[in-house]
Amino acid sequence: MTAVTPHSVSAARTLVEPVLREAVGRLDALSARVAAYHLGWADAAGRSTGNGGKALRPALAVLSARAAGAAGERCLPVAAAVELVHAFSLLHDDVMDGDPTRRHRPAAWTVFGDSAAILAGDALVTLAGELVLEEDTPARVRAARCLVSATQRLIAGQGRDLEFERRADVTLEECRRMSADKTAALLSCACSIGAIAAGAPEPLVTALAAFGAETGLAFQLVDDLLGIWGRPEATGKPVLSDLRSRKKTLPVVAALTSGTPAGDTLAGLLARPEPLPESVLSMAARLVDEAGGRAWAETEAKHRLDAAERHLAEADMPAEVRAELLEIAHFITSRDH
Amino acid sequence: MTAVTPHSVSAARTLVEPVLREAVGRLDALSARVAAYHLGWADAAGRSTGNGGKALRPALAVLSARAAGAAGERCLPVAAAVELVHAFSLLHDDVMDGDPTRRHRPAAWTVFGDSAAILAGDALVTLAGELVLEEDTPARVRAARCLVSATQRLIAGQGRDLEFERRADVTLEECRRMSADKTAALLSCACSIGAIAAGAPEPLVTALAAFGAETGLAFQLVDDLLGIWGRPEATGKPVLSDLRSRKKTLPVVAALTSGTPAGDTLAGLLARPEPLPESVLSMAARLVDEAGGRAWAETEAKHRLDAAERHLAEADMPAEVRAELLEIAHFITSRDH
Repeated sequence: MTAVTPHSVSAARTLVEPVLREAVGRLDALSARVAAYHLGWADAAGRSTGNGGKALRPALAVLSARAAGAAGERCLPVAAAVELVHAFSLLHDDVMDGDPTRRHRPAAWTVFGDSAAILAGDALVTLAGELVLEEDTPARVRAARCLVSATQRLIAGQGRDLEFERRADVTLEECRRMSADKTAALLSCACSIGAIAAGAPEPLVTALAAFGAETGLAFQLVDDLLGIWGRPEATGKPVLSDLRSRKKTLPVVAALTSGTPAGDTLAGLLARPEPLPESVLSMAARLVDEAGGRAWAETEAKHRLDAAERHLAEADMPAEVRAELLEIAHFITSRDH
Repeated sequence: MTAVTPHSVSAARTLVEPVLREAVGRLDALSARVAAYHLGWADAAGRSTGNGGKALRPALAVLSARAAGAAGERCLPVAAAVELVHAFSLLHDDVMDGDPTRRHRPAAWTVFGDSAAILAGDALVTLAGELVLEEDTPARVRAARCLVSATQRLIAGQGRDLEFERRADVTLEECRRMSADKTAALLSCACSIGAIAAGAPEPLVTALAAFGAETGLAFQLVDDLLGIWGRPEATGKPVLSDLRSRKKTLPVVAALTSGTPAGDTLAGLLARPEPLPESVLSMAARLVDEAGGRAWAETEAKHRLDAAERHLAEADMPAEVRAELLEIAHFITSRDH
């Protein structure tokens, strides 16, 4: 089945996109062009291509403001800022990973060159700071700190992700921490930054952040599964690309550390110095499954989603906001988002 | 003559370096290692090599706090943050420019790889935000905004610098604006951010910012001259490297737009598609001189320094702070800094 984009996500995109476009319009011409392409608003020649991506993170930020009783409109700059940090990280990750494809299109660095992609990423992360700090209220400063600290974790997680490609002895705990930093930290920030900007009480902020962190881990687990068994037409990435670059994703590390014969065979394959042909990659995928990595990741994703739901249940917020947050969590951890 | 490092610069380094080291120590292991190397604290293997660079920008920030009557110690996080943004920009610039040498040592990307250098730059610019926002006073938020806006101009300036390498029709005004963004904006921020963080009145902040902007332009002019005629052992860069990469620096653009026969010959040389051999680069340098680009840049640097001095004279601050600021301005625009 194909999951349907929740209404709250499309509604948030309608609210946030004008703020994003205005902000990107302040950048120098080159970075604005790269950003418009990367965000899906323009083609390589700068011609308008309509709306951008799903804007999941802004939707979570808007809902987190509403959870605190504020109007979603009040937190649009912080919602846009989270999306800008996400866009920055993808721009730089694609350069570092050498990934030629992003969301079914050539990655920005393949179109504009490495330097332009690096610069545009720099410009977007800086723009995020500008947006959040437009108001100098104490709540805004706390929101800025939340975003900066999530950005720092995201960078650290990407660093370890790259390092793990060259290491054979990554533990499941290291891998989990890497995913918590690389993916879950910014989602946790998205789920709490609207509430922070709205001056919400600490217990609500903490519950929302925990909901986001658990949802983020579930999302990463599903993303890792899709990176091996997803259909390229759905993921927008070449088949088996994570295994090709020897990424130590969660299901792969679960398999490698399973103590099973399949796990040991997998370790032997991934230790080969030469590029791995398609046939070996398919065999590697089967070994991850056989060693229990696939089943473990599926179960673990479910556990994380359950934990996210519990955090949400404990938090004091309007019932319809809780339902909408939960709908997004299920949406982004569905197999065909 | 070799200019002697002003006392205020070494004093500021003693104050700021512990703050910088503590901050960098918070980063993930990989970025911390790259940053320690890039900042001159460690060699490629991570062995301590003593103190880092001159820390001119922190010195200016400390003096700007003192200009506002505050103790220099009060503004150490913002002083360190300016240095972190500077370090970020050099890390990324070297990757984009493909510059193999920085401060007489192999550039960080040649030692740790592009990805590690990009990530470390990302980590440092984010760390700068963390440091400035550690206090949520309105003055700190204004300081953060000043830094974020200078960072955005620096990124835009670097983008145009790269773009200009491939353009033959750069005007002197475009080139001046590029230098104002790429170099002068962060120096202007350094010269005013301490005062901003100390809650100084607007006229003092404005005067200090203007002093920094003019000093920054003078510095860039001198740096451009050194990029052509400086001794490699003093500049730490290969001889004629700016001409080799066809950088449209201020003296080059002054020559190209001079309407002289030498300027036209220079334009012809720089338009050649093939890499330029040493002999052609030496001829290009002579043509910049002959077309008046060298003399213009020398005079212009003097004018900018005079303007900087005037802004300082108009500002209300302790006489010894004014003298120390001026000493740094003369130091960084001397030929052998």
